[in-house]
Amino acid sequence: MVLSLNDPLDMHLHLRDGRMLDIVAPLSAETFSGALVMPNLVPPVTTEEAVASYRERIVKAGENRAFTPYMTLFFRSDYTPEFLASVRKEILAIKLYPAGITTNSEGGVEGFDLIELAPVLEAMSELGIPLCVHGETGGFVMDREAEFIPIYEKVAGAFPDLTIVMEHITTKEAVEALDRFENLYATITLHHLYITLDEVAGGLLQPHLFCKPIAKRPEDREALLKAALSAHPKVMFGSDSAPHPREAKEAPGCAAGVFTAPLALPALAQLFDRHGALQNLQPFVSDNAKRIYGITPPKKEVLLEKSPWLVPEIYEGTVVPMFAGQSLEWRILRAG
Amino acid sequence: MVLSLNDPLDMHLHLRDGRMLDIVAPLSAETFSGALVMPNLVPPVTTEEAVASYRERIVKAGENRAFTPYMTLFFRSDYTPEFLASVRKEILAIKLYPAGITTNSEGGVEGFDLIELAPVLEAMSELGIPLCVHGETGGFVMDREAEFIPIYEKVAGAFPDLTIVMEHITTKEAVEALDRFENLYATITLHHLYITLDEVAGGLLQPHLFCKPIAKRPEDREALLKAALSAHPKVMFGSDSAPHPREAKEAPGCAAGVFTAPLALPALAQLFDRHGALQNLQPFVSDNAKRIYGITPPKKEVLLEKSPWLVPEIYEGTVVPMFAGQSLEWRILRAG
Repeated sequence: MVLSLNDPLDMHLHLRDGRMLDIVAPLSAETFSGALVMPNLVPPVTTEEAVASYRERIVKAGENRAFTPYMTLFFRSDYTPEFLASVRKEILAIKLYPAGITTNSEGGVEGFDLIELAPVLEAMSELGIPLCVHGETGGFVMDREAEFIPIYEKVAGAFPDLTIVMEHITTKEAVEALDRFENLYATITLHHLYITLDEVAGGLLQPHLFCKPIAKRPEDREALLKAALSAHPKVMFGSDSAPHPREAKEAPGCAAGVFTAPLALPALAQLFDRHGALQNLQPFVSDNAKRIYGITPPKKEVLLEKSPWLVPEIYEGTVVPMFAGQSLEWRILRAG
Repeated sequence: MVLSLNDPLDMHLHLRDGRMLDIVAPLSAETFSGALVMPNLVPPVTTEEAVASYRERIVKAGENRAFTPYMTLFFRSDYTPEFLASVRKEILAIKLYPAGITTNSEGGVEGFDLIELAPVLEAMSELGIPLCVHGETGGFVMDREAEFIPIYEKVAGAFPDLTIVMEHITTKEAVEALDRFENLYATITLHHLYITLDEVAGGLLQPHLFCKPIAKRPEDREALLKAALSAHPKVMFGSDSAPHPREAKEAPGCAAGVFTAPLALPALAQLFDRHGALQNLQPFVSDNAKRIYGITPPKKEVLLEKSPWLVPEIYEGTVVPMFAGQSLEWRILRAG
């Protein structure tokens, strides 16, 4: 059995920089037509020059494959409307991190004061710049996302013309919120469709499945699955693929992040196939994002075949992927 | 400020065997008067000879300190009343593990069939042998203990003369169950009084705090604290101190267990002191256990002083303790 996907998009991707960028960018560029690239470098991407120069490094690392890096800016509450108008052409969205909530988010927004954020959100709304949010409070790890939903709703209500993307949602509460506000959208990762906290810490502890937001309860995974498998029109695929060097993952104080970019499409095909929903993979992994963001990525047809594929144990001796050394039921036949 | 504790008891302790036993037994024997020793060796302790020989190895490893290892047998549903009557003098309790639920529990009880277990429970009840239970179902990791409470209650109701100890409880549901059945008791660990899942996986992932049952929610920790700090008469201290070699903890597939034995008393003194409950440490850490189990451990006075103590980074280059490299507010002045 062969499945054809057109212009797959990864609407939430960490490409890092330097040697790590050189390792992972070609892997995404190989099978995706484009990706929304997160700005949490050290220091974060906050200027027009930083965006342009990061884009250049990504394109170079992608080795001229047909792949569009859609750039984001790291949200700052002191951006002026003039700056935003000027940077508009360089970016597809602005990413907001509550301070300290995930890798390299230390410079993010403290608390979530709508009055403080209002001028920037107002300008973004007028300029048509979507707001992407890592929606977690500083509360108990299993409650952080659900506790953030009222903040999403406050912003969505106050700025009805602002496109708000709840990034990498992990809870049934977030799925339910989608239908309450017209301007609320969401990305869902690969790993949150596959795992719950049981896979991370229910047996032996598995650092390579440790991520932020942490994988939640079975009923949460069910809600995510339902939204993804039905290609809910407000839901897009965003891998949140987040590479860390093996030694940073396999030590006490392991960093959060699951590396899935190179195996995302085969693993999605396996999942949608197992649930008899293969026909909904195209909208989940491309059409919804094209429509929501109004983008036209480079043409790329990816052919997947239902045939076993052994996921590598490690990429370039550096990054351990999800499903490392395990067999998936689908493999990529051809991309291009 | 100096605190005197008489005959401290650790009513749930893993001493392992071989070189690990030689490392950890002296550390417990130094500051505790006795400990209930868990039988989950490989193979588990299931015969009179195995109990006697393990006791001998513990006493030898403890280097003649005044310390009584109270022995347990690994629960098997095929023990005969005759065997139990004969082994009675060698053991203080029998420990029941649902199969596969924690380290070396593979030979435990599959499911929890009261009809299958009844003959052994009946004999234990008649012989006055307490039943210690690792009470977790095979369900979702955050629900396993709460799901097990109805099983505790079924057994407690069916065998009203059987002393049942809910080991290392982690939930408010377990604390509440204590007051519903006269023959239900519990142990509480040091680490579950200090941490929730936040400390394990809320920031960076901390394998040295990964244990079974996993640390739960803030309201669960509050309930445990309330029971311990008030020295609830049915609650005993049981460290569940569970040493693993550093390399087994700091690798993917990290084993469950927190090593706390050598710092348990200073850390308990710090906690009870901070909550103004120092007067309740003596019953929590000794008197309750003496009464519940009817034991008279060797006399040992432990003097603790409110003075900073730096917890070692590692013991014998092998085992990393809780609070490794951190300072506690209390230290042991003298034990003996």
